[in-house]
Amino acid sequence: MIKLKHPSGVIQTDSPKNISYANRGVSLEEDINLTNTYYVDEKIAYIYKKPTPIQINKTIYGVDGPRIKDAFFKEASTTDYNGLYRGKYIDFDAKETSSKTSFPIKNIHSHQLSHLKNIDENGGIAFLIVRFTALDKTYLLMAKDIFNYINSNTSKSIPLSFFEERAHPIETKYRPRLDYIKIIDKLYGGINGTK
Amino acid sequence: MIKLKHPSGVIQTDSPKNISYANRGVSLEEDINLTNTYYVDEKIAYIYKKPTPIQINKTIYGVDGPRIKDAFFKEASTTDYNGLYRGKYIDFDAKETSSKTSFPIKNIHSHQLSHLKNIDENGGIAFLIVRFTALDKTYLLMAKDIFNYINSNTSKSIPLSFFEERAHPIETKYRPRLDYIKIIDKLYGGINGTK
Repeated sequence: MIKLKHPSGVIQTDSPKNISYANRGVSLEEDINLTNTYYVDEKIAYIYKKPTPIQINKTIYGVDGPRIKDAFFKEASTTDYNGLYRGKYIDFDAKETSSKTSFPIKNIHSHQLSHLKNIDENGGIAFLIVRFTALDKTYLLMAKDIFNYINSNTSKSIPLSFFEERAHPIETKYRPRLDYIKIIDKLYGGINGTK
Repeated sequence: MIKLKHPSGVIQTDSPKNISYANRGVSLEEDINLTNTYYVDEKIAYIYKKPTPIQINKTIYGVDGPRIKDAFFKEASTTDYNGLYRGKYIDFDAKETSSKTSFPIKNIHSHQLSHLKNIDENGGIAFLIVRFTALDKTYLLMAKDIFNYINSNTSKSIPLSFFEERAHPIETKYRPRLDYIKIIDKLYGGINGTK
């Protein structure tokens, strides 16, 4: 959030008009984190980031408990984000590419693909948020569409045209930064929840 | 799974009759992991364990990528398990106590309580699986009941009688080990899912 210090000392947090919030060098992850905070604050949805999985090799025991002295980052076995919207399970990963023409499928690890498949098969809402940084375009692509593409194409990357045709553009705004829940709501035609 | 080596060399994995699988010194976590594997294999539900959150102090960069050289375990900010059953969001933690009379509330960290509250408020299914190891009893206690207890009692622990009255006993069986989805299904009267 951009906070403007007002001469009176009051911090003005309202959205200034006619300012583009796109492409400010802010990472996609940061945009998503801000959006998720907004969803929690406004009691819209509860989506959170999972811890990074690591493999521990060596732990020592000190006075303040165990301390990890050697470990490495494991390949992601699931996605970065999950949570819920009106009782429905939501799961996604955020990916950035500098390519102007296509998204390399190798950016999605095979474990992540099986994870998204499991979510989809159990009635959950699974997708990717993909940003083409050079084009300043962000899309929500449903997992089903990714599987369809992979199953019917031999290409090692998903062309931008496929995103333009099948994915859902997400506008970068002031607040919420990336309103992906709006798209989910539209796609699922107002989710029947317990709320 | 208990594998009996048959004289013929065939590994017999069928359930032997009249054997109690309870209280074999197997941890609650192990029982839950076995159950979750069963749910995935049988395409019933997809519930998985989250990575352990750590705080990294020092990372070095070697030929095989970054390596963590100093880190410690952070207090759990969420729960250990989450996933979905017929599209519905499910979230829980597993707790063991050696007490024969009550479950100490301090075993649930404050972050975990707010996490469960967020799940509950967003229409998800939030609960604890609590095992009284000395009694060999395992219960599923809905988060709503935990909040109710905490809000209307000053006691620092939840007595066993509260579990007997409000919680749902989970039998330890051969396969699935702890069929907690059966309880969820009963409580929610057959979930309307996309399956």
